Amino acid sequence: MVDQTDETQSVLFNLAETWSALTASEKKEKFNALPRTDAEELFLSLKTHDQAELIAQATSLEKRSWIRMLAPDDVADVIQDLGLEYKEELMSLLDPQTRREVTALLAYAEDNAGGLMSSRYVRLRPDMSVDEAISYIRIQSKTQVETIYYAFVLEADQTLLGVVSFRELFSSALHKKIREIMKTDLIKIPVNLDQEQIAKVFSQQNLMALPVVDEWNHMKGIVTFDDIANVVQEEATEDIQKLGAMEALDAPYMQTTFAELFKKRAPWLLVLFFAQMLTATAMGFFQNEISRAVVLALFIPLIISSGGNSGSQTSTLIIRAMALGEVRLKDWLRVLRREILMGFCLGATLGLVGLLRVVFWPTREEVFGSHYFLLGLTVFVSVVAVVIWGAIAGSMLPFVLRRIKLDPATASAPFVATLVDVMGLVIYFSVAMFTLKGTLL
Amino acid sequence: MVDQTDETQSVLFNLAETWSALTASEKKEKFNALPRTDAEELFLSLKTHDQAELIAQATSLEKRSWIRMLAPDDVADVIQDLGLEYKEELMSLLDPQTRREVTALLAYAEDNAGGLMSSRYVRLRPDMSVDEAISYIRIQSKTQVETIYYAFVLEADQTLLGVVSFRELFSSALHKKIREIMKTDLIKIPVNLDQEQIAKVFSQQNLMALPVVDEWNHMKGIVTFDDIANVVQEEATEDIQKLGAMEALDAPYMQTTFAELFKKRAPWLLVLFFAQMLTATAMGFFQNEISRAVVLALFIPLIISSGGNSGSQTSTLIIRAMALGEVRLKDWLRVLRREILMGFCLGATLGLVGLLRVVFWPTREEVFGSHYFLLGLTVFVSVVAVVIWGAIAGSMLPFVLRRIKLDPATASAPFVATLVDVMGLVIYFSVAMFTLKGTLL
Repeated sequence: MVDQTDETQSVLFNLAETWSALTASEKKEKFNALPRTDAEELFLSLKTHDQAELIAQATSLEKRSWIRMLAPDDVADVIQDLGLEYKEELMSLLDPQTRREVTALLAYAEDNAGGLMSSRYVRLRPDMSVDEAISYIRIQSKTQVETIYYAFVLEADQTLLGVVSFRELFSSALHKKIREIMKTDLIKIPVNLDQEQIAKVFSQQNLMALPVVDEWNHMKGIVTFDDIANVVQEEATEDIQKLGAMEALDAPYMQTTFAELFKKRAPWLLVLFFAQMLTATAMGFFQNEISRAVVLALFIPLIISSGGNSGSQTSTLIIRAMALGEVRLKDWLRVLRREILMGFCLGATLGLVGLLRVVFWPTREEVFGSHYFLLGLTVFVSVVAVVIWGAIAGSMLPFVLRRIKLDPATASAPFVATLVDVMGLVIYFSVAMFTLKGTLL
Repeated sequence: MVDQTDETQSVLFNLAETWSALTASEKKEKFNALPRTDAEELFLSLKTHDQAELIAQATSLEKRSWIRMLAPDDVADVIQDLGLEYKEELMSLLDPQTRREVTALLAYAEDNAGGLMSSRYVRLRPDMSVDEAISYIRIQSKTQVETIYYAFVLEADQTLLGVVSFRELFSSALHKKIREIMKTDLIKIPVNLDQEQIAKVFSQQNLMALPVVDEWNHMKGIVTFDDIANVVQEEATEDIQKLGAMEALDAPYMQTTFAELFKKRAPWLLVLFFAQMLTATAMGFFQNEISRAVVLALFIPLIISSGGNSGSQTSTLIIRAMALGEVRLKDWLRVLRREILMGFCLGATLGLVGLLRVVFWPTREEVFGSHYFLLGLTVFVSVVAVVIWGAIAGSMLPFVLRRIKLDPATASAPFVATLVDVMGLVIYFSVAMFTLKGTLL
């Protein structure tokens, strides 16, 4: 996949890529087998959770050297991953400067701008000349700043005035003042902005780094694209897991303990099970119809599941479109109109197949009785109605959830299917009572 | 959300962010209302599909100026989005140099490295001095190179020797040769590597730009992080839509025509409907049992849906873990063992609720008859067995699909649920025939 000419690099790269799929003992073994410099490089390229795992298992001496290799924002992430019990020990291993920075970062929630940002950025004053700025950056480039490619122009009181990309600096006349060449109409990230929102800003802007400011426009740090690339993956994983009717996991599947996995999965299954018990209640009302025409029972799973499937499609589409900002709350009526028509077309297609299945079945009179045509008609009408209902429920539920400030992704495929099932039974038997009155019923 | 002090910037930003949610007429109106420079800035920040849409509707004169604002790789994307009918016209509007570059890029598939890469990168020779290289880059920084922050060191025949970050260059002694400071153990992207794989490399490496090479190690271009950020979103959207049991859309929901949406959705619903018809067949075998004990029919939707729900959870988890490289093909046995145990625990929890529901229901003798305890037991055992079966099918199906080189995301929640339903019915009635023999049956 990746060029194989340089052996070490590729081995390390493959190891890093497949790291989270390894078992704990495989990890330990492989890590210890690496030469020191390779081990360091691998460690730095791992995700936070994997770094934390290695640190937790390391000896005191190793802990000290590993943790000191990380930048302050990464140290903060590792501490947040490991929890409070490790905080004091790990903090004591840092040099005083880094410790101060980590403490400041830990004050912010893990998943907003404050928790993602780095305080190691290049600062310039507005009255420096381009020449001075370049020399100044040359010095800073040898120390631990996250990027030298964007320099932020600050007043003495840390008020953010503007930004200069190194590229602009580099192509400007040397005697010009920073004030003259800086860009002042810049996008700023509020320190408490949620990471999902930050990812949106990045995907819109294609910038490498954005400044984080507090409410008084004081610069607090920078967020860089590499922090955000992981956020986009994480958020997608969370949404996908919610769409699968469970709570989002905090760690990769293989690293989540059995008990934790159970805790994330059982509650939603129970909610669905309770909701689904309404189907038994609904069926109770139609017990007489079933005992008079057992043949009706044959089509129950088929009919209710067509509604569930069309509902799942619709809700998935709408939830993703909402997450990407393609559909807004006020679009609900346009979506509803469109989905009703779509439900009709899809339902008619499926219903027709169902009708033909009954009417042209070789042993139709034997299995379905002499009124097989009426039965086929019942299936056709029910499927159309149930699929339309699925499309309505599947498209509107995400809007309702968003309106009441819940995550639309909660309207998972199984959740929508369950909701649709109960109503689907009522629709089916109501249609049957109408079409089969005087014949089967 | 984003700082509001600079009015124009924020308005433009919000417009760009919500662009794909607007109708065609709203877009036209808003775009024409913008001053020229703002319109240009907005245009550049839009996604390919939206840029293509604007270009398709523009006058010949506008077309010329819009298309010339784009970098060659973006022109290639727009042409790929609009299709062959626009190719000739748009190509004729480009300057000869850009046209050559676009032609080269169009030779590659849209979704691999060749289709994503840009040919505008900084080239250095190995025997330049640092001083010469910096002056050379200063000149290039004024022309259209994608980034000046990574310079690639090439032989005269375009063989890639190494890379120098500007930062390294900047902190090196001026008289050193590029050959001495360049990094030679670099990650290279083969020109035909799929974009999903490229995204993995980026997320692992946190680099801004990676070189694309052909099989003879000749440098063909660079892929930059901003191309990849969009890829990650796109791939997640595709997976989510597949998990919702439909084909992935090529454009945002609101911009997909009704006919196209129908074409993406109907086939999967039909496949599911055909599969689900097996339930009617399966039920046919148990028609006698149902007519003897109609009460059995009441629990059909409840029991088969518990299997479907647990199967959906499992398949979603495994599919996402596979996409992120957390679970490999050879892990199937570990996953299977784990999921069987999980299915048992989840099934026992749900089954117990079902048992209690039957046994402690106020009108139990009336609704369920005198053998209500045996019926409750039937529900318990069936739910346990069906949930385990759901977990097995949901966990193994993605492995089977990947093994036969299909996309595991095809094992969508509705697909797994449908598979589980048929078997669920067989399990339920088999259990009933055993537990209720001599009483109800």
